[in-house]
Amino acid sequence: SDLTDAPRGPVVERVPAGDERLRLVCDDCGFIAYENPKIIVGAVVTHGDRYLLARRAIEPRKGFWTIPAGFMELNETAEAGAAREVWEEARARVTVGPLLGVYSLTHISQVHLIYRAEMIDADHAAGPESLEVALLTWDEIPWDDLAFPSVVWALEAQRRSVGRSDFAPEGAPERPHRPE
Amino acid sequence: SDLTDAPRGPVVERVPAGDERLRLVCDDCGFIAYENPKIIVGAVVTHGDRYLLARRAIEPRKGFWTIPAGFMELNETAEAGAAREVWEEARARVTVGPLLGVYSLTHISQVHLIYRAEMIDADHAAGPESLEVALLTWDEIPWDDLAFPSVVWALEAQRRSVGRSDFAPEGAPERPHRPE
Ligand SMILES: [Zn+2]
Ligand SMILES: [Zn+2]
Repeated sequence: SDLTDAPRGPVVERVPAGDERLRLVCDDCGFIAYENPKIIVGAVVTHGDRYLLARRAIEPRKGFWTIPAGFMELNETAEAGAAREVWEEARARVTVGPLLGVYSLTHISQVHLIYRAEMIDADHAAGPESLEVALLTWDEIPWDDLAFPSVVWALEAQRRSVGRSDFAPEGAPERPHRPE
Repeated sequence: SDLTDAPRGPVVERVPAGDERLRLVCDDCGFIAYENPKIIVGAVVTHGDRYLLARRAIEPRKGFWTIPAGFMELNETAEAGAAREVWEEARARVTVGPLLGVYSLTHISQVHLIYRAEMIDADHAAGPESLEVALLTWDEIPWDDLAFPSVVWALEAQRRSVGRSDFAPEGAPERPHRPE
């Protein structure tokens, strides 16, 4: 069979029997993909008065700077996932602290759980998804070259909560700076 | 073809090319099901000194009492999802307040985001997934007949945070009362 005949997986939108919402279904095998919002876990990582940022080696927003964050995996806590992402992207070991932000991004159906984390030592290095990693003071942060609005929100949430541990995480602002 | 030959969807565990983790793949159509943790949104709903609880009409834990909670849907905020679940299960309209708990249940790969919510009026009724709904004082809560440990955690988090709005959400206790 040529490529146009190849099975394509769940790509047809339909309301399955007994359901009330459109779901992606596969006409080849009948599988129903119950799409759920996805969880992004990440951290604003500090070492003294410096912030750990990574420059993205992959799309989207390749070449722009971000805090370590990525898709939460199965069978981990949100805090463990945040620490894992810090290790994978910036090769730093951290202690995860309070939740800075819970950002529901409705247009892409993601919930970002961003924690405060402190480095156990100053070691850091670029992981496979990063071009470079840097420990920067607040004034050195490349504000015009940050990858996503939620990076700005989380950095500002950390700045506002310095010295506090018992505070409510913030949500996404009413007007995001830029669609993500 | 008989039933044993029917396509079964993604049921084979394999590490796809370019990936590093086991995923469920479909041998019929090649679809890879990237399973992600799922988000449960819910609320501890109060009206004065009373708590809104629903008795489950569906499995799991049919017949047991719960706070309104369920799977977050696409394209909604976590807060809107919590209010939606309150309406679907207990036919009450609420104002959603601060986050009481963020419970990572690693054995079932769920993250529960449980908010405090206040009823706009006293109206309530059983939705299709509830056998009955009740507004109960703290002492009337059927502690031995609650559906899930996270219901207990969230009720206790609400009790501890009464009168406060700027506080950190709690996580799951180290030793869950009972596997969920
Ligand atoms: Zn298929
Ligand atoms: Zn298939």
